[in-house]
Amino acid sequence: MENKKTCVKLGLIQTHAEKNPKDNLYRQMGLIREAAKQGAQVICLQELFNTIYFCTEYNDKFFNWAEPIDGELTSSLSGLAKELAVVLVAPFFEKRATGIYHNSLVVIDADGSLLGSYRKMHIPDDPGFYEKYYFTPGDKESGFKVFETRFGKVGTLICWDQWYPEAARITALKGAEFIFYPTAIGTLASESKKDKKEFREAWETIQRSHAIANGCFVASVNRVGKESGTQFWGSSFVSGPFGQVLAKAGEKEEILVVECDLNDLEKQRQTWPFFRDRRIDVYDDIKKRIID
Amino acid sequence: MENKKTCVKLGLIQTHAEKNPKDNLYRQMGLIREAAKQGAQVICLQELFNTIYFCTEYNDKFFNWAEPIDGELTSSLSGLAKELAVVLVAPFFEKRATGIYHNSLVVIDADGSLLGSYRKMHIPDDPGFYEKYYFTPGDKESGFKVFETRFGKVGTLICWDQWYPEAARITALKGAEFIFYPTAIGTLASESKKDKKEFREAWETIQRSHAIANGCFVASVNRVGKESGTQFWGSSFVSGPFGQVLAKAGEKEEILVVECDLNDLEKQRQTWPFFRDRRIDVYDDIKKRIID
Repeated sequence: MENKKTCVKLGLIQTHAEKNPKDNLYRQMGLIREAAKQGAQVICLQELFNTIYFCTEYNDKFFNWAEPIDGELTSSLSGLAKELAVVLVAPFFEKRATGIYHNSLVVIDADGSLLGSYRKMHIPDDPGFYEKYYFTPGDKESGFKVFETRFGKVGTLICWDQWYPEAARITALKGAEFIFYPTAIGTLASESKKDKKEFREAWETIQRSHAIANGCFVASVNRVGKESGTQFWGSSFVSGPFGQVLAKAGEKEEILVVECDLNDLEKQRQTWPFFRDRRIDVYDDIKKRIID
Repeated sequence: MENKKTCVKLGLIQTHAEKNPKDNLYRQMGLIREAAKQGAQVICLQELFNTIYFCTEYNDKFFNWAEPIDGELTSSLSGLAKELAVVLVAPFFEKRATGIYHNSLVVIDADGSLLGSYRKMHIPDDPGFYEKYYFTPGDKESGFKVFETRFGKVGTLICWDQWYPEAARITALKGAEFIFYPTAIGTLASESKKDKKEFREAWETIQRSHAIANGCFVASVNRVGKESGTQFWGSSFVSGPFGQVLAKAGEKEEILVVECDLNDLEKQRQTWPFFRDRRIDVYDDIKKRIID
């Protein structure tokens, strides 16, 4: 039996945001170079990477920051991906049409070609996270996504999606070897110390559970810094296919480069053959809001 | 606003198994009394509680241990539930018909009445866990279950079900306030120390994740002791509705009594309104084996 060793190095860029989108773009292009220098092959930026997390307030001026999928932002990143021969996962505020905006990301292959985009399917709306005002949820037709890149099959979800086992499951069933979760999550000053600790643990636990249930790698990329009263907690991490935390960042700016062995997926799914025993005949009720 | 405090005490019976089923029954009836004395109101026994975990080998003599739902076992437990005024969750080897056996449980209300049964839907089959030989999977028609008991809405799943987010989700959508996972899980001598640690962590993580995703309490009840080379790891625990480990047993015999406040569910689901944002229009693919 062939025992091919296929290691892929993931790079997670955890950083703060500055007021001016262009500054964020140029600075993070530098961080991408740095990650590539450290050997990263698939590099993921945080949610809405080139802007502050503007959903802390209702303000229509922020719609001016939205860009089309095939705009300048993507073209700058495509050039960089090609130059460095790395895959890029870049989340940003998309203008799809006048009046239709999405919380999206693009995946660019290591030759600079645009493989496609994913539009956040689950949109939150909570104090300090007013996303339903800004973002149309992703369409059923575009749906969940996996991209065949030079370095592996990259599944992509965004932030709030991370709380939904359905999203991870479908992405895994589509063949994802890695699931990336670019994120903007933090705590408000009003939350107790106990709550803050529980929130962070729950955030890590649910994402590790997607790795476990689906036998794939999970990489979560969160921002840092304080913006309008929200303290983003960083703590970006990569989980192995049985929920092992392979590496985890702190709460400051950090580039996390983590090697993942694709052979681990084969071994994992043979040792713990969850996919074999799924009762696909009895899952209809998943599609109900509540069973009452 | 009414702020009704509705606390329910769960009792988890974590114990070893002896050769003779009757001995296990009588001994554990004693442990149920002890749990009730400590205030437990909903008491759950471990998977196949009145027998050894016989699935470590293929042997047709074990079919003789199977009992009907309305047999002596259930009737003994009904009497005890009524006497102690407690709800019982009792998992055992069910004989449904000649040639149809299930890995089942019954739920008995605090007045001794039999509320119904659940038949394990996901059946494992791995070295030392030859369950597909013994157990017919639960039917689509009986499916996932929630029981309205005197002390709350009790959802029930069994062991291998714990790796499937779909099972927890549907049980929660049916109204479960608590999801019980009676279990028989352990490590084989051949497994490395690192593997053993990872397996246990994954087991705890995935079950905590069901509490998080669904905003309900999760109680996992595992056996202890060594049987035919398998070391069952105990570590029964109760998780709060955001994955907090409220209490956890060691690796020896133990009765875990844990108070759960049902008001926490209301608060949890308002603070983290995951059910609100489920994209029930895009989950069809969950019903596929793989998307290829």
